[in-house]
Amino acid sequence: MIDYSAAYTDLYQLTMAEVYFLQGRKDEQTVFDYFFRKLPFNGGYAVFAGLETLLDVLEKLKFKENELEYLKRMGFDNKFIRYLKGFRFNGNIYSTKEGDIIFPTRPVLQVEARITEAQIIETILLNILNFQSLIATKASRMRSAAGKRKLIDFGLRRAPGPGGYYSSRAAVIGGFNGTSNVRAGFDFNIPVAGTMAHSFIQSYDHELTAFRDYAEIQPDNCILLVDTYNTLKSGVPNAIIVGKEMLKRGQKLLGIRLDSGDLAYLAKESRKLLDNAGLNDVRITASNQLDEYVIRSLIEQKAPIDIFGVGTNLVTGSPDASFDGVYKLALSNGKPSIKLSETIVKITLPHKKQVYRLKDNEGNWIGADAVTLFDEKEIGKIYDPFEQGKSMNVDMYQREPLLEPAVKDGIRKTEKKSVEEIAAYSFYRQECLPPEFKRFDNPHIYKIGISEKLKSAREKLIDEWKEDK
Amino acid sequence: MIDYSAAYTDLYQLTMAEVYFLQGRKDEQTVFDYFFRKLPFNGGYAVFAGLETLLDVLEKLKFKENELEYLKRMGFDNKFIRYLKGFRFNGNIYSTKEGDIIFPTRPVLQVEARITEAQIIETILLNILNFQSLIATKASRMRSAAGKRKLIDFGLRRAPGPGGYYSSRAAVIGGFNGTSNVRAGFDFNIPVAGTMAHSFIQSYDHELTAFRDYAEIQPDNCILLVDTYNTLKSGVPNAIIVGKEMLKRGQKLLGIRLDSGDLAYLAKESRKLLDNAGLNDVRITASNQLDEYVIRSLIEQKAPIDIFGVGTNLVTGSPDASFDGVYKLALSNGKPSIKLSETIVKITLPHKKQVYRLKDNEGNWIGADAVTLFDEKEIGKIYDPFEQGKSMNVDMYQREPLLEPAVKDGIRKTEKKSVEEIAAYSFYRQECLPPEFKRFDNPHIYKIGISEKLKSAREKLIDEWKEDK
Repeated sequence: MIDYSAAYTDLYQLTMAEVYFLQGRKDEQTVFDYFFRKLPFNGGYAVFAGLETLLDVLEKLKFKENELEYLKRMGFDNKFIRYLKGFRFNGNIYSTKEGDIIFPTRPVLQVEARITEAQIIETILLNILNFQSLIATKASRMRSAAGKRKLIDFGLRRAPGPGGYYSSRAAVIGGFNGTSNVRAGFDFNIPVAGTMAHSFIQSYDHELTAFRDYAEIQPDNCILLVDTYNTLKSGVPNAIIVGKEMLKRGQKLLGIRLDSGDLAYLAKESRKLLDNAGLNDVRITASNQLDEYVIRSLIEQKAPIDIFGVGTNLVTGSPDASFDGVYKLALSNGKPSIKLSETIVKITLPHKKQVYRLKDNEGNWIGADAVTLFDEKEIGKIYDPFEQGKSMNVDMYQREPLLEPAVKDGIRKTEKKSVEEIAAYSFYRQECLPPEFKRFDNPHIYKIGISEKLKSAREKLIDEWKEDK
Repeated sequence: MIDYSAAYTDLYQLTMAEVYFLQGRKDEQTVFDYFFRKLPFNGGYAVFAGLETLLDVLEKLKFKENELEYLKRMGFDNKFIRYLKGFRFNGNIYSTKEGDIIFPTRPVLQVEARITEAQIIETILLNILNFQSLIATKASRMRSAAGKRKLIDFGLRRAPGPGGYYSSRAAVIGGFNGTSNVRAGFDFNIPVAGTMAHSFIQSYDHELTAFRDYAEIQPDNCILLVDTYNTLKSGVPNAIIVGKEMLKRGQKLLGIRLDSGDLAYLAKESRKLLDNAGLNDVRITASNQLDEYVIRSLIEQKAPIDIFGVGTNLVTGSPDASFDGVYKLALSNGKPSIKLSETIVKITLPHKKQVYRLKDNEGNWIGADAVTLFDEKEIGKIYDPFEQGKSMNVDMYQREPLLEPAVKDGIRKTEKKSVEEIAAYSFYRQECLPPEFKRFDNPHIYKIGISEKLKSAREKLIDEWKEDK
């Protein structure tokens, strides 16, 4: 549905690339880090999503003929336009696996490429990874609140335009069971689900007739919306009539949906009515401005809700609504590079790097990742990247390397993964994360440490800069 | 870039449509209202955007062959699949002009169509109009804070994936001057602008060399980023050197960009340095987490900033991140319909309607819209739709009808409008809106009144419902 082109980028990527090109620097090798500084939702972790989308896009990314004509009219140099005409991403990508748990400061993904190519793909890379990681993280928080109950994405109508295509994908990666979004269901092979709207019931003179008509045509997937008139006096009793009629025909009413009022109270009362009518299998779906906090509260109140339909707060990633991933130069033409800043937490990490997840002998996560130079073999100690004097011994821990080659010379190195596989991997990794990092209120802070060599390399660059001033 | 298909919808639209189809009800005429209940950003108004996108999409909307196969595999009836194969939107649309100022409760747009068609387009309509209206409204607030200064959308990297394509469009409708988004610039014919990134400067040994290289290749559009090392001690002095060199070559340095630190202070000091060097024409661009409140504060502090580059807070429409537009049945098979609710503000307005903006004899907006039955000629009084006993005489006012035929029997009735035209219209309408409605803090509440006939029609339906219980 989305036909990304290389012109879906910021103008400055092209003006900078033109300078590199015309100054004879276009083939200089660089490494850029994709990382983020602040966890969304005041949470203790984030979920990485969007990688497969990015890899698909990069494989095919080029400028279209009419875009090149447009750039020409804008005044770009003819030789540079010819270069753009042949532009392909031919670099390397080292990435964390999609669906993994990620933390601030450490590189989530590294691009190793010619400076022009690395620059031209920056915006689209950030655009894809930031949005999907935001939504997957939000979804994961709802999963953590919902336990084994079902979560369905109902958000397309409030989703950010065509962004809704990918929010449905990212929701499933984060832990949702399905979506109402038919096109996303088709393209990403994820379960599609739905109920009925109030307008359906309004279009009949009587709620019962509406329910009967729906059950007749949709016997296999019948969830009746019970709050159009009065949930407990009209909606649920009518659903019970239809549920019993279906039983007589050898069919089963799948569920009812509550979409207004006090969901905890209505779910409990509806459950009683259904159970008293012998319809113990009929499930209760709830929707209406849900988020992880409302879901947690409903479960604490023991509301017998089986399925949560979540819209706005999922697909907008509200209240944060953005994931602050950035793309910073770490190596330029053979030389390590840092982004300096008066604020120490904004100083980046130079060089091509590797990241390790540390585990004890039983394979349990100890709550720390180590960032090292790419080819370091031993790491005895890791150091806090921002606070002097904070370090920890890590030589007793197992190390799992997190950045793996995803693209080599523009060619994909990893097998394409389905959303189902990525979601299963994410589920497994979310289970590995100790619960204190998943807590909504004051979650434990996961440690990021840098190796002695990386620390020295960075300090050297900071010192050189200070001397230079 | 975006190839919408009819399957970009919620599953329940298709299951409901299948029921209508198989029960022989598919051609029943309906009217649905698109309206919203809550103004975003605690503001006093909203800006309507997305109409042209919607009309373009509806003209071509159909199901693709592989989507139909998918629906067939899901178990949809063969006859219904054949119907979907021939599906086109053949209904009517009455709409407010794109770019106009809109308020809660009153229909912004009405769809008059066969029930199946009206239902199948619901999700895509909401998806398009809600997102663009959110962003245009946010942009308009920044325009109102920025006065005559330039506003440029720099948000693509934080935009919700492909949603960024339309956020750039909606930003310009709301009042932005341009975008960094090249593809949106091309497709929507809106001005594209940009500066340079920190990575560009980092890729050189010296800031001055980086500036010189850039100025050499981009003399016509040269805005130098001055905060990589030290804004006032390094960045601005180096920019001044380059600015003077450019002057000698008969060129002009366009500007500098501040992207960190205290923007008010740095802008003032930079302005002094530039002016003292005789570079009075060089403009100052500022970016870094701007929103309407920061812009207002910078202007109150008399910061000499000429151009604001706005990213995250524009393209996510944060902190709200959603526009709560809904789509409710107003007329069904010749019969008026309302969505009932225990909460009176959630009770909708029945019938096909017209909306009038009320003006005094000089054409000034008096701060009220009147909602009437579609063909009402006279309206002496309007009534508060939710509070009993509140009414006002309006027969002395001029009335401008707001809903105009946009689509008739599936065929577009209005000329295609460029984003530039829509933005100009929106600018004019924003100027018409009295300032007390634009205030950020406790804005004045714009009145929405319904005519006596509409009020009676609605009360009749509510009474029938109460008797029915």
